[in-house]
Amino acid sequence: MNIPFEVFREPAAMRARAEDLRRDGRRIAVVPTMGALHEGHLALVRHARARADVVILTIFVNPTQFGPKEDLSRYPRDEAGDLAKARPAGIDLAFCPSAEAMYPAGSQTFIEVRELQQPLCGASRPGHFAGVATVVSKLFHITRPHLAVFGEKDYQQLAIIRRMVRDLDFGIEIQGVPIVREADGLALSSRNAYLSAEERRAATVLHRALQSARAATLSGERRGPALEALMAAEVGGESLVRLQYAAAVDPATLRPVPVAKARVLLALAVHVGATRLIDNLLVEGLE
Amino acid sequence: MNIPFEVFREPAAMRARAEDLRRDGRRIAVVPTMGALHEGHLALVRHARARADVVILTIFVNPTQFGPKEDLSRYPRDEAGDLAKARPAGIDLAFCPSAEAMYPAGSQTFIEVRELQQPLCGASRPGHFAGVATVVSKLFHITRPHLAVFGEKDYQQLAIIRRMVRDLDFGIEIQGVPIVREADGLALSSRNAYLSAEERRAATVLHRALQSARAATLSGERRGPALEALMAAEVGGESLVRLQYAAAVDPATLRPVPVAKARVLLALAVHVGATRLIDNLLVEGLE
Repeated sequence: MNIPFEVFREPAAMRARAEDLRRDGRRIAVVPTMGALHEGHLALVRHARARADVVILTIFVNPTQFGPKEDLSRYPRDEAGDLAKARPAGIDLAFCPSAEAMYPAGSQTFIEVRELQQPLCGASRPGHFAGVATVVSKLFHITRPHLAVFGEKDYQQLAIIRRMVRDLDFGIEIQGVPIVREADGLALSSRNAYLSAEERRAATVLHRALQSARAATLSGERRGPALEALMAAEVGGESLVRLQYAAAVDPATLRPVPVAKARVLLALAVHVGATRLIDNLLVEGLE
Repeated sequence: MNIPFEVFREPAAMRARAEDLRRDGRRIAVVPTMGALHEGHLALVRHARARADVVILTIFVNPTQFGPKEDLSRYPRDEAGDLAKARPAGIDLAFCPSAEAMYPAGSQTFIEVRELQQPLCGASRPGHFAGVATVVSKLFHITRPHLAVFGEKDYQQLAIIRRMVRDLDFGIEIQGVPIVREADGLALSSRNAYLSAEERRAATVLHRALQSARAATLSGERRGPALEALMAAEVGGESLVRLQYAAAVDPATLRPVPVAKARVLLALAVHVGATRLIDNLLVEGLE
């Protein structure tokens, strides 16, 4: 919207700029990312671009959402490449802080979304969603958005952020954008870059298993445990893939559904070699 | 500042008004209270009045900061009387929501200031400071202040809010206002109303014990445990008063100080009959 592109690194400077834009009556959208941008992220940027005057991209590999044995140190980082992709997709400003700027010594405040953070990925990643909720809250305070856009691939994250925004009265509109997939169904993820050619082929089993479970649901199988067993069996057929969870849950509470009613969220987490991948599929309009 | 006085009860309406005021370039100060206003609260209002264009008073007896055996149900409530005191002291707007408006069904998000919430009052009131941090965060999002004013009587609360605001990048200035005392030294508190005449006389021991410990500090006693023992002994001389803690702590970390250096916070919590009272005194400029 005719504002000069700029990369901010200091929270206070970014916030001052965002405050000025708000006072000028501009509608701000933020797209929080950890960088390593792919078409899924660019879909978020385009979604934001169509709905706001000013689009701020944030790139921050947030250490507090990684467990001690997770891939923080090897997570791909390419700020110049990311900005080269994001600028033509429509960002106006970028916020790319250091970990030191975001977590000065003495930082000790965390936001817990106590129920939604427990199941699914929360069960195997203790502290992960507290890290996510906390950093998103910080990014909201720094970029002062009217609208924030997140991918539906991280379904639980999106549910937690929606809940946090409602519970803490942030007054920010949260919008989810559908998963972008490769031609063979693999959901785009920055972590796909870790996969060998053989692992890449095996990873397509996530989407196949979700599709099979959806087909079964539409054919009349509404028992959550049966849908979970079906997905687990399909994933089990791929020797390179190790299942972490196969879940059929209520999309609002993320609790297991004994019997699916109007809607069911099918969700998977697996390891392919050393790489952890997730995927999900929402089945709606059931009778 | 020539805006019509109004009481808001709905978070969304209050936030919309505050957003408009910000867009008009007004500087907003908020004074969060639980009502039952006394001269201590009015000192906060006057402090805010002198430093902002618009002063918003919030009155909300926050259920999530009361323990199951605490005084939530008997906490004094008198909104009309409170507003009659606060308006001449200089408020422009009031936010007085119901518990249902603040905590709709499904609310589950809490803010934890993990270290500062542990000692002192946190030790005997589990969950109290998470309740405080959470509701203050909500009130900040709803009233959109540039400045928020709190009393120094709740020293730990003030320290936790300062830390939260810094850690979560709220971009709000937090100012503390000194304790207001009765002529005999008793710190003003809404809970003083619970005291019988006899308990009221006994309660003056808090300030006497703090003064004794300050005198001892200035006379050269810098050992934290000795200062604590001195206060505990003085409180122990009042048969109606039961000590909860007597602490000599670092004012920044709230951790016990083996030996006081430049500054020491002296803090007391007691029960007088069924009434819990706290008080504190910061000794600075030590050599």
